[in-house]
Amino acid sequence: MIDEGLIESGEQKIEWARNHMPVLSIIRKEFEEEKPLKGHRIAMALHVEAKTAVLVETLAAGGAEIAITGCNPLSTQNDVAMALDTKDNIDCFAKYDCSSKEYYGSIDRVLDIDPDITIDDGADLIFKLHTERTELLDSIQGGCEETTTGIHRLKAMEAEGALRMPVIAVNDAMTKFLFDNRYGTGQSSWDAIMRTTNLLVAGKTVVIGGYGWCGRGAAMRASGLGANLIVTEVDPIRALEAKMDGFRVMPMQKAALYGDIFVMTTGNTDVLNRDHFELMKDGAILANSGHFNVEINLEDLVALSSSVRDVRKNIKEYTVGGKHINVLADGRLVNLAAGDGHPAEVMDMSFANQAQCARYIAENKLDIGVHAVPYDLDVRVARLKLESLGVEIDSYSPKQAEYMGGWECGT
Amino acid sequence: MIDEGLIESGEQKIEWARNHMPVLSIIRKEFEEEKPLKGHRIAMALHVEAKTAVLVETLAAGGAEIAITGCNPLSTQNDVAMALDTKDNIDCFAKYDCSSKEYYGSIDRVLDIDPDITIDDGADLIFKLHTERTELLDSIQGGCEETTTGIHRLKAMEAEGALRMPVIAVNDAMTKFLFDNRYGTGQSSWDAIMRTTNLLVAGKTVVIGGYGWCGRGAAMRASGLGANLIVTEVDPIRALEAKMDGFRVMPMQKAALYGDIFVMTTGNTDVLNRDHFELMKDGAILANSGHFNVEINLEDLVALSSSVRDVRKNIKEYTVGGKHINVLADGRLVNLAAGDGHPAEVMDMSFANQAQCARYIAENKLDIGVHAVPYDLDVRVARLKLESLGVEIDSYSPKQAEYMGGWECGT
Amino acid sequence: MIDEGLIESGEQKIEWARNHMPVLSIIRKEFEEEKPLKGHRIAMALHVEAKTAVLVETLAAGGAEIAITGCNPLSTQNDVAMALDTKDNIDCFAKYDCSSKEYYGSIDRVLDIDPDITIDDGADLIFKLHTERTELLDSIQGGCEETTTGIHRLKAMEAEGALRMPVIAVNDAMTKFLFDNRYGTGQSSWDAIMRTTNLLVAGKTVVIGGYGWCGRGAAMRASGLGANLIVTEVDPIRALEAKMDGFRVMPMQKAALYGDIFVMTTGNTDVLNRDHFELMKDGAILANSGHFNVEINLEDLVALSSSVRDVRKNIKEYTVGGKHINVLADGRLVNLAAGDGHPAEVMDMSFANQAQCARYIAENKLDIGVHAVPYDLDVRVARLKLESLGVEIDSYSPKQAEYMGGWECGT
Amino acid sequence: MIDEGLIESGEQKIEWARNHMPVLSIIRKEFEEEKPLKGHRIAMALHVEAKTAVLVETLAAGGAEIAITGCNPLSTQNDVAMALDTKDNIDCFAKYDCSSKEYYGSIDRVLDIDPDITIDDGADLIFKLHTERTELLDSIQGGCEETTTGIHRLKAMEAEGALRMPVIAVNDAMTKFLFDNRYGTGQSSWDAIMRTTNLLVAGKTVVIGGYGWCGRGAAMRASGLGANLIVTEVDPIRALEAKMDGFRVMPMQKAALYGDIFVMTTGNTDVLNRDHFELMKDGAILANSGHFNVEINLEDLVALSSSVRDVRKNIKEYTVGGKHINVLADGRLVNLAAGDGHPAEVMDMSFANQAQCARYIAENKLDIGVHAVPYDLDVRVARLKLESLGVEIDSYSPKQAEYMGGWECGT
Repeated sequence: MIDEGLIESGEQKIEWARNHMPVLSIIRKEFEEEKPLKGHRIAMALHVEAKTAVLVETLAAGGAEIAITGCNPLSTQNDVAMALDTKDNIDCFAKYDCSSKEYYGSIDRVLDIDPDITIDDGADLIFKLHTERTELLDSIQGGCEETTTGIHRLKAMEAEGALRMPVIAVNDAMTKFLFDNRYGTGQSSWDAIMRTTNLLVAGKTVVIGGYGWCGRGAAMRASGLGANLIVTEVDPIRALEAKMDGFRVMPMQKAALYGDIFVMTTGNTDVLNRDHFELMKDGAILANSGHFNVEINLEDLVALSSSVRDVRKNIKEYTVGGKHINVLADGRLVNLAAGDGHPAEVMDMSFANQAQCARYIAENKLDIGVHAVPYDLDVRVARLKLESLGVEIDSYSPKQAEYMGGWECGT
Repeated sequence: MIDEGLIESGEQKIEWARNHMPVLSIIRKEFEEEKPLKGHRIAMALHVEAKTAVLVETLAAGGAEIAITGCNPLSTQNDVAMALDTKDNIDCFAKYDCSSKEYYGSIDRVLDIDPDITIDDGADLIFKLHTERTELLDSIQGGCEETTTGIHRLKAMEAEGALRMPVIAVNDAMTKFLFDNRYGTGQSSWDAIMRTTNLLVAGKTVVIGGYGWCGRGAAMRASGLGANLIVTEVDPIRALEAKMDGFRVMPMQKAALYGDIFVMTTGNTDVLNRDHFELMKDGAILANSGHFNVEINLEDLVALSSSVRDVRKNIKEYTVGGKHINVLADGRLVNLAAGDGHPAEVMDMSFANQAQCARYIAENKLDIGVHAVPYDLDVRVARLKLESLGVEIDSYSPKQAEYMGGWECGT
Repeated sequence: MIDEGLIESGEQKIEWARNHMPVLSIIRKEFEEEKPLKGHRIAMALHVEAKTAVLVETLAAGGAEIAITGCNPLSTQNDVAMALDTKDNIDCFAKYDCSSKEYYGSIDRVLDIDPDITIDDGADLIFKLHTERTELLDSIQGGCEETTTGIHRLKAMEAEGALRMPVIAVNDAMTKFLFDNRYGTGQSSWDAIMRTTNLLVAGKTVVIGGYGWCGRGAAMRASGLGANLIVTEVDPIRALEAKMDGFRVMPMQKAALYGDIFVMTTGNTDVLNRDHFELMKDGAILANSGHFNVEINLEDLVALSSSVRDVRKNIKEYTVGGKHINVLADGRLVNLAAGDGHPAEVMDMSFANQAQCARYIAENKLDIGVHAVPYDLDVRVARLKLESLGVEIDSYSPKQAEYMGGWECGT
Repeated sequence: MIDEGLIESGEQKIEWARNHMPVLSIIRKEFEEEKPLKGHRIAMALHVEAKTAVLVETLAAGGAEIAITGCNPLSTQNDVAMALDTKDNIDCFAKYDCSSKEYYGSIDRVLDIDPDITIDDGADLIFKLHTERTELLDSIQGGCEETTTGIHRLKAMEAEGALRMPVIAVNDAMTKFLFDNRYGTGQSSWDAIMRTTNLLVAGKTVVIGGYGWCGRGAAMRASGLGANLIVTEVDPIRALEAKMDGFRVMPMQKAALYGDIFVMTTGNTDVLNRDHFELMKDGAILANSGHFNVEINLEDLVALSSSVRDVRKNIKEYTVGGKHINVLADGRLVNLAAGDGHPAEVMDMSFANQAQCARYIAENKLDIGVHAVPYDLDVRVARLKLESLGVEIDSYSPKQAEYMGGWECGT
């Protein structure tokens, strides 16, 4: 079923994104000229929205055949998915609000392309490859992983000796995690929370679960919007950084009493559960910015609730005792499930890394295991980005280069 | 034509807003018990969205008969308007994207109620009363005005001796302008810009036109989102404050060269015009947060442009020479025309002032002219708000009260 | 007794300050040419440090004969006082750490000049004139008052009908209180606290007493240094602003439990007293940035303490029960008593107002009472300051001026 | 020559510091009980001021014999040095404003102790050991290095195969560089600049050379004090971070035109030189927060200047053409040469790492080369610091630990 209006809407979104992704545009031109991905089949499971579409186009421009599906049931934008599906050498199977069965079915269909390269956001493709579709592993040259949670899963697999393919930890490129996880998650989470609730952030007590790069992005922006911040952490060093950054730091068991808005960025499960729901204030707002919808324990919340109802688009109100707890986007990553995801300029950098790494896999034979993004590729993204922004920087003078290489100059 | 789905959607929005407007709820309870507006007919021209609906309900609960229309062609939310129109003693004539003729026609229909009280946001009702509907002036006991621009018009009328009714400058209540214009406009403008563009604010050069309360709200939030700020001003004292707040200050003729995003909050006309458009960077984003759509001179922009097209919902791209300029929401106040307006908690304060002032007009005989909100009413809003937030504050001890009343204690 | 070394040190400080006070320099040139103060005798009681010396020079350049003393026992810098005293037409009686008797004796000696103009910071001269030296009142043409506390005393006198001379409320000039009280007190208080304690501000819980202009300056800078802020207030509107600015707001009785550093800016007495000392944490640091040393009740603290000792320059440690409370600069305004006072550029504006107002008094006959600084003089300071900073700003186009004067342009 | 007054003053400073270094106090108690350094001779070259004295006491409490000198000619506080020298098992050779000959002579005297452990800040001891005192290398068990610049020198030595002893890169402990270099340098640099100049930071254009941890600390605090920031960098990723943090980024050749205050934190040489001095504004202020006094090329500046004079304590004014350039503390690290160095609470963490690493060297046989601080020791510092601050944090529940160890849980 082709809906021309939806396709047009999708195309418009893609064009807007494309126009704000200058680094990926440069890579696309190289890909068009050099066709480094010719003959490669790429299986992808990413959030299917406009910026992702620009990455997919870029890979296709490089000569690849592509099958893509979503990496989250609520993050697909159907118009973009449909527009993508109409393009040459691209099959898109993603659908908004799909059932769990549909979700995993689409992953299977994507893998049916018999890929030699995979691109994951959360490692669902690689998980499937290592459990139900092991017959495909032999053809795999390598994979790319976009997010902290995916890297975490892959390193756990590697540690257990279960990983059977090379994977590049795209998330761990400096031009990815320092920007996407911090400025991207920071802005897009609050964009989504503000548009979904139409509530004031200034003066609210905001509890951020986790002070990794996503958490500090979320905290920095909440503070910039006038909130009073509480951070929870399990890592003493990060906890101390949060404290020195001027925030209150305490266990969730205590923070639960004070929070007006809770934003989860831990990458862990069960961060907000029965113990906390019971303590929360009437009207508390819960949002998740972590990859999986496990940070807020919704089973616990349902079990405690006498009723649940929709109170605004993407807000469910749970009645617990005499009070109300509002969950945004069913606890799925709020920036994508209740917004448009990260700003285009940030995804420009993340996906420039993806495109470069896909090419790197195509052109190199990697050992099984989790690999870092080559430093040169990483720095190149920063250089191209600075150029696109018209920012010039210094370089060492010969005198400085010599000084930095030496050790004989003292006090 | 009744659309049950729309009405339900409108009701849901209103309920959500109502639940986040505790000060207005207290006043509503008083109004329900005391019916201070019984027998009064209130004509209103406000942005017809959920928070306004809660004000209208409150006035109706006080016994008033109400006719309301919009105060801007693009700020009405049709579902809310429809829901409002179904309520007892309330007629709503507002419609989204109405023509200029419809707009002024609705103002006439609202005035047909033969009001004794008016509530304006921008003074369009009062302007009509003083020009085409002067026959109604005799029945008027007084009016309330919500916004800086309206106050400005009314004071100009007063200065010319043209004003023929008493008006309370609700905008100038401290619990209005210090909060609504600053925290309200600050958040809602950026909420709208982010959701409309899906672009990154961090690292952008943002030019704020005007450093009044709206402008400093917009600047504060842009800074909190990671932007680099430039402020333009005509007032030397405000310009100096902007400078000391760490921002660059320069004439618009120079700022036009640097800006990635322009946000207008001057209340003046022609702030961005042909002179500036020609200097702007390719891709510049223009938004207006001022009351009227005169700050960005769209006639100039159209005249300069070789083509105009929609590039995303609420974004028009003008091609000027080889470059593109993007205007949000046709230069109408971006927070309402491309968003949901101010957060509910802020409007709670502004509209608590409106409700109290409507009552004050009903219960007092005021002289012709522009009046301040009585200090006691103003402070009461702050007290009720603090209570609703669970914030306790200090009060003078007898020793302190005596000290503050005296002058004999020195070094 | 002349100490050449001290005089040289004082001269050096004065020159440095002079070079950073460009607005006052312009006024000085005018004064040198026009001698508007010729024949006038000015009695002054101000903090005698380098910036004040530049004001005194300026007044002398205008033809005045001047006698000056301090307005606080701990804020005089002896080298500056000595350097000032050597200049023509200037007598300086200020001395650091003078006794109360010496302090008031010096005020008498200053008044012995039989002044026609007074310049006060805290109203001690005017107080003395109205109590013990009433014989001098007849010669007085007017006075200037520098600080909030002084204005407060003078308005209390005026309200009681006790005031017998005209006074200009220099503090209330926008180019004074918006800058001096906010950016000045903000920076100089924390400069003093940091240099005195060598302790980290980041991560500390800082309690600011009062959220007037001084309080918000102190809060803004503490926040900028990484502290977690608590604000106490008696005014509901200011309390709500502090809350919306992201700070916690609570009564001092509760804040006393949490604070690591307390900074008082209320202008009131007894803000920290026995009730609070007993609750404080071990190691709490107390500083006062208010004009008089009454905000921290030292009598209460001494009464509670088992011992008191100096633990670092300008820090006294009081042992209360098992814990220690550290008081900076004996509770006198910390920025002057344990630092060099406000930055020169800020005093440039405040003292430009003083110089202009002294001239205004000399050239106009004012009624008895507290007068505002004439708006034109106030704005001129801002214009001159912007020029000295090389900042250009916009002005109305004819089209804009017409629009702002009109009221007929609507939606 | 014993000066009792100076010793008393030094003791008082040391006691104040000690009371604000709780982590080091805990380690000191352990050292007193377990004497892990018994029989060890430690040679130290650190900034000899109060916090360092507490480290020295701690090491002595562990049983060590200690000889210490300064690591910078202007950072020694003579009273502290003298107080330290009176203590058992501690010889102190540091002197403020010593000549270069005295400086290196003191390093020799310290090495005369025939140390088995060295503690350096800038690697001057190790440099001397590897050049003129190689006969002592055989006795060395290992060294600790405090600062980025020292690590840089040591890694250059290691890369050249010149390093002949094991060294622990204390600087690279997370509980060191994330805190000391960022919050420490950030606050102490601005504390020193403010107290030295008495100028306003708000509204100034501040140029930060380098956006490493020191640079971002300095930028963060300048921003918090109201400055407008420009960052210069050679690293594209850091440059992009600075841009996204809202700062302007440009080459120094351009920044030189705009800066009011320049703060260097690059660790490189010749960052400000003739090319830049010629472009600077009249009155520009230059400060260095890097380890060595090479960042500002004073030879170039002297060569350009027609005259040089002292204009305030720790400020030299250079006249270049018609304008004046002010250099703070002769271009030596401003926070120590014109202030009291980092806040005690920050040095508590850095020196807790030093004390733990000295013990680690005493108890372990390390290979030649530069070693990381053992992770457990690093985290322990954070845990102890959090405890001392009364901050509790979360830990994994069994369910969470299992989740974080696994990889089978997906979307």
